[in-house]
Amino acid sequence: MIIIMKKGYEEQELQRVIRRVEEAGLRTHLSIGDNTAIVGVVGVPIPPELQSDLEVVGGVEEVLRVTKRYKLPSREFHPDDTRFTVRGVEIGGDEVIVIAGPCSVETHEQTLETARAIKAAGAKILRGGAFKPRTSPYEFRGLGEEGLKIMAEARDETDMPIITEVLAPADVDLVAQYTDIFQIGARNCQNYLLLEEVGKTGIPVMLKRGMSVQVEEWLMAAEYIMAQGNPNVILCERGIRTFETVTRNTFDLNAVPAVKRLSHLPIFADPSHATGKWYLVPAMSMAAVAAGADGLMIEVHPNPDHARSDGAQSLTFENFAKLMPQVDAVARAVGRHVATTAGQALVAAD
Amino acid sequence: MIIIMKKGYEEQELQRVIRRVEEAGLRTHLSIGDNTAIVGVVGVPIPPELQSDLEVVGGVEEVLRVTKRYKLPSREFHPDDTRFTVRGVEIGGDEVIVIAGPCSVETHEQTLETARAIKAAGAKILRGGAFKPRTSPYEFRGLGEEGLKIMAEARDETDMPIITEVLAPADVDLVAQYTDIFQIGARNCQNYLLLEEVGKTGIPVMLKRGMSVQVEEWLMAAEYIMAQGNPNVILCERGIRTFETVTRNTFDLNAVPAVKRLSHLPIFADPSHATGKWYLVPAMSMAAVAAGADGLMIEVHPNPDHARSDGAQSLTFENFAKLMPQVDAVARAVGRHVATTAGQALVAAD
Amino acid sequence: MIIIMKKGYEEQELQRVIRRVEEAGLRTHLSIGDNTAIVGVVGVPIPPELQSDLEVVGGVEEVLRVTKRYKLPSREFHPDDTRFTVRGVEIGGDEVIVIAGPCSVETHEQTLETARAIKAAGAKILRGGAFKPRTSPYEFRGLGEEGLKIMAEARDETDMPIITEVLAPADVDLVAQYTDIFQIGARNCQNYLLLEEVGKTGIPVMLKRGMSVQVEEWLMAAEYIMAQGNPNVILCERGIRTFETVTRNTFDLNAVPAVKRLSHLPIFADPSHATGKWYLVPAMSMAAVAAGADGLMIEVHPNPDHARSDGAQSLTFENFAKLMPQVDAVARAVGRHVATTAGQALVAAD
Amino acid sequence: MIIIMKKGYEEQELQRVIRRVEEAGLRTHLSIGDNTAIVGVVGVPIPPELQSDLEVVGGVEEVLRVTKRYKLPSREFHPDDTRFTVRGVEIGGDEVIVIAGPCSVETHEQTLETARAIKAAGAKILRGGAFKPRTSPYEFRGLGEEGLKIMAEARDETDMPIITEVLAPADVDLVAQYTDIFQIGARNCQNYLLLEEVGKTGIPVMLKRGMSVQVEEWLMAAEYIMAQGNPNVILCERGIRTFETVTRNTFDLNAVPAVKRLSHLPIFADPSHATGKWYLVPAMSMAAVAAGADGLMIEVHPNPDHARSDGAQSLTFENFAKLMPQVDAVARAVGRHVATTAGQALVAAD
Repeated sequence: MIIIMKKGYEEQELQRVIRRVEEAGLRTHLSIGDNTAIVGVVGVPIPPELQSDLEVVGGVEEVLRVTKRYKLPSREFHPDDTRFTVRGVEIGGDEVIVIAGPCSVETHEQTLETARAIKAAGAKILRGGAFKPRTSPYEFRGLGEEGLKIMAEARDETDMPIITEVLAPADVDLVAQYTDIFQIGARNCQNYLLLEEVGKTGIPVMLKRGMSVQVEEWLMAAEYIMAQGNPNVILCERGIRTFETVTRNTFDLNAVPAVKRLSHLPIFADPSHATGKWYLVPAMSMAAVAAGADGLMIEVHPNPDHARSDGAQSLTFENFAKLMPQVDAVARAVGRHVATTAGQALVAAD
Repeated sequence: MIIIMKKGYEEQELQRVIRRVEEAGLRTHLSIGDNTAIVGVVGVPIPPELQSDLEVVGGVEEVLRVTKRYKLPSREFHPDDTRFTVRGVEIGGDEVIVIAGPCSVETHEQTLETARAIKAAGAKILRGGAFKPRTSPYEFRGLGEEGLKIMAEARDETDMPIITEVLAPADVDLVAQYTDIFQIGARNCQNYLLLEEVGKTGIPVMLKRGMSVQVEEWLMAAEYIMAQGNPNVILCERGIRTFETVTRNTFDLNAVPAVKRLSHLPIFADPSHATGKWYLVPAMSMAAVAAGADGLMIEVHPNPDHARSDGAQSLTFENFAKLMPQVDAVARAVGRHVATTAGQALVAAD
Repeated sequence: MIIIMKKGYEEQELQRVIRRVEEAGLRTHLSIGDNTAIVGVVGVPIPPELQSDLEVVGGVEEVLRVTKRYKLPSREFHPDDTRFTVRGVEIGGDEVIVIAGPCSVETHEQTLETARAIKAAGAKILRGGAFKPRTSPYEFRGLGEEGLKIMAEARDETDMPIITEVLAPADVDLVAQYTDIFQIGARNCQNYLLLEEVGKTGIPVMLKRGMSVQVEEWLMAAEYIMAQGNPNVILCERGIRTFETVTRNTFDLNAVPAVKRLSHLPIFADPSHATGKWYLVPAMSMAAVAAGADGLMIEVHPNPDHARSDGAQSLTFENFAKLMPQVDAVARAVGRHVATTAGQALVAAD
Repeated sequence: MIIIMKKGYEEQELQRVIRRVEEAGLRTHLSIGDNTAIVGVVGVPIPPELQSDLEVVGGVEEVLRVTKRYKLPSREFHPDDTRFTVRGVEIGGDEVIVIAGPCSVETHEQTLETARAIKAAGAKILRGGAFKPRTSPYEFRGLGEEGLKIMAEARDETDMPIITEVLAPADVDLVAQYTDIFQIGARNCQNYLLLEEVGKTGIPVMLKRGMSVQVEEWLMAAEYIMAQGNPNVILCERGIRTFETVTRNTFDLNAVPAVKRLSHLPIFADPSHATGKWYLVPAMSMAAVAAGADGLMIEVHPNPDHARSDGAQSLTFENFAKLMPQVDAVARAVGRHVATTAGQALVAAD
């Protein structure tokens, strides 16, 4: 339920609305504008009489019942696009933000070398996994805190914010000491306890779509984070599981404009996991930006053939540097841009 | 199996190769270049000794075993992109070709009006169904030959080639009298007898991907058409069936660069069927072009709310005209272009 | 729309109902019982006023709007299970009918030998393909009419009805000269022109579920056959396409009781195609019968390793003979039975 | 890698094998039989020379490289079916074990009443969720420890072992104080940290298949539990996510015999979640047992219409009591049985 206040409402009227909602055992979520305010009702069940009760409170313009099962991520609740800034990098703005880096942090040298290379090419955020979920228990599972330290060093040197995955509620505090953005991986998209823990930190969270999660369920997963008071959620489409085997996953780019219509949250796309093949990454990076993605997440490794995980889908430094102006050209075609070195951008625009 | 002839091979050497293949009960498919020739072996089984027998024939450079289950559509067989021209419109070239029109031909007026509107906006080919496959037998199934006549009149007036669907082998001759390109719909992607019938006509064929057809199977379906001596096949991605219900189908744009790598055939994309929602068509049209599609197929109707089929996914004339320069801008970002009226293109490039 | 007549209605009242429906441009489908009659309205659109017009006709008990998109196959239309007899074999009755035979008719000897073996083990209908749809045009595509003749000879010798696949509308007349039941394969489940052609013949039709066809769409496909006046339709679940690759398809046995609830049509199951692996066929045959299947369709070949198609999923004579009493035991557990030689059945019942 | 010792090998030979494996930085897993022993090598990478090194150790019969990505759950590693006993109930034996109970523990009365009813009907284990994963954060999420206490009371009164879900690694110790079997739900099938935590406890674990998890990946998930030294794993098929919407999920019963062939672990089936509809549960329970399932997990609620979760898929006491002898009849048809009250079983056998 959403209560829209009249222009020029009075503060005590707003307080009366909030009190009435709380008396019904529910909580409120406020969006205060210049002349008006929108009060979201959080919680269930909503007593049938609440709507008519609120409609007669002074200052109330309209009381709407929300038909969707998610609320905080919905456009009905928050009509404008969500934008926020992470260490000076604006998410959800005109610039298409490129996150890049290795699948796993392997060594200090590999990470730093990659950080420098992607920054030079225009990436704005460094990715790198210290805790890796692996299908088999005998595969490399990341360096743990040692990996987090390496990521932090890379941030210090390159002045780029970092993003890294957290796998368990118990690790949230540790990872929070290092990361600028939490990554919730596809396998944990519906790990609700983990979502609530990262929600409590207030640190921005990138929520990857689960392999068989519908768009509506994905937005309900985002609601778990937001209901803890953390509005800084980025969605990330990374491919869904279908019958097609020529690619690792099926990149559901339909989800990008579909989410934009249903939700105000920024949405990124990960062509590396979505295709599983490095040679498909360039075309699908451009396609994602054309579809309206607010950012990209791309795996880059100094030597993909020797990567300890997901080498087949990682770009070399050279291929990544070549891709960035191409992505920028497409971004400009849709009224946005990607930061690249000037020369490269000019070449691409020719 | 593929036999590559040495540069400067002699004609009689080539004939010896062909004869040897035919003696083994197989047929050949020739690609003659300026200095060399490639002989494809068509048919099974290939006797184990054939490779070594051919390697010692004079003029033979190399004999390769093809590992893929499809041959004629493969890049191994035909390394260069296939290009061909339909009534002056080049398919597979630098220009991204836009096909547009109504789902079904309903009336003469509706079709002509649409043809004029899409041509004015830059579309190059008119689509319109006279024979419609419908999930329920009680739904509108098209005007039949009357619809074909209307399409032909629209071609005469606007000088645009036309494409229309054929549903059964028995209708191929009738449809061939009118159409410039046959459309094979998703439900008939593996209707092999129909594929062979359209293959025999030599008229270009657009083969839409079946709802649960893998890329490799799709290329094998194209092989049915090509094995009848018809090289003019266009593939068209139109969405696959998955668990996601927020869109009508899941647009598998990964398939565009994946097909480009495996095959020399042109590939188009149909964002109207792939999304099922008109408001997602613009973003996904741009995404398809960015992914490398050689063309688009878009449903346009003078009055989508009153369309007899698929109104929910059809654009109005106005929305289509607005979309074309946007698609052109993305096409130019990837080194291609879409024909639009000059003014619109300039606006889009700003 | 369904009109239920009062008990003891008069014939002229029924005729008035029919006339009123026909005046609205629609057709009727009658189910006459001992004391009552049910009139189904076939066609669209149904004028809004028709319901109230009919409710006031004498003899009319009730006028129901059918909410489902299919009518003739629905239980609302025809509450009792459909049963019919093919050359003395009752379909849809208490006996679980086993259809068996080779994927393809290869030789007279292979077919006759198989027919004798399966009959001895208790199968009631012989299957065998003369026209085979193959993913690649270079694979064995069946013996054509020669294969049909061999099947007819096997019927003559063993006195078992036969079922064989028809691929194209143009072949329907030819196949009708030989077969007792048409098989429509998964790839043709939505080949509507073919469905109508077999519908016109009045010969029973087994309609296999398409690889990505939902249960509701499958019933609408059955409607195409039934709307031509052919009530003798058997549905056959044969596996759907999913992300799982350990089996060829995913056997959707949920569809068996789901169809039973929605429709009066008999439903069979094909564990051979649904699993793609002969060693999974026994367990899944039993599971299908326990789920409520009215029959099974099982591939049997004298020498599966040398079969020209689908050998990996074919049982040997020995394994088939061993399976039959096992299936009978499960059938008896659910109040049905399978014909087996007496001794075997007794052994199994112990 | 698996090392099979010769019959009559000596203990010091076995120790030498183990030492050699450990020198390579790997661990071993022992299966000691009457005359022989099988040594499994756990860990990666396996040095290429290890196989030949081990083949020359005295007492070694054979050294096999395991081709599958999972080891401990594989039949290669452990040819015999795994059986174990939980509070006197044997899992994996001839008896098909029925687990029943409410989706969520709601009240003491509801749980005790249900426990008594299912026990009277022949169920052997009580299920009930105290921690519930819910798609929306505003839905009922279980009573927590209060719910665990109620479950323990129900066990004390009825003397049935209990199973309940654990959602997070941090809750494992708490839940371990109460439960006899941990349930890992579908959403946590690949929550590897949670799998390891329950693995460490040694308490039996039922691992439900994830909605888009392939059979091979499922067995690798089981490996996470077993690699911690916990061999008592039960797999549970509960439906996968596909395009079909007539049921909540698609019950992949193919997985039952497929798992039986690949693995020695017991496999159960959950027709309640797999269908999502109570009226499909009876048919699919019987189908699961016919397919070879070692047990069933069925939701039962005193008043399904008022259940706080998943009421649509819960059976009433009456329907459950009616189902048990039907399942028993099918179990007997495949050489197994279900405990039911004698009278009911006799009725069912008629």
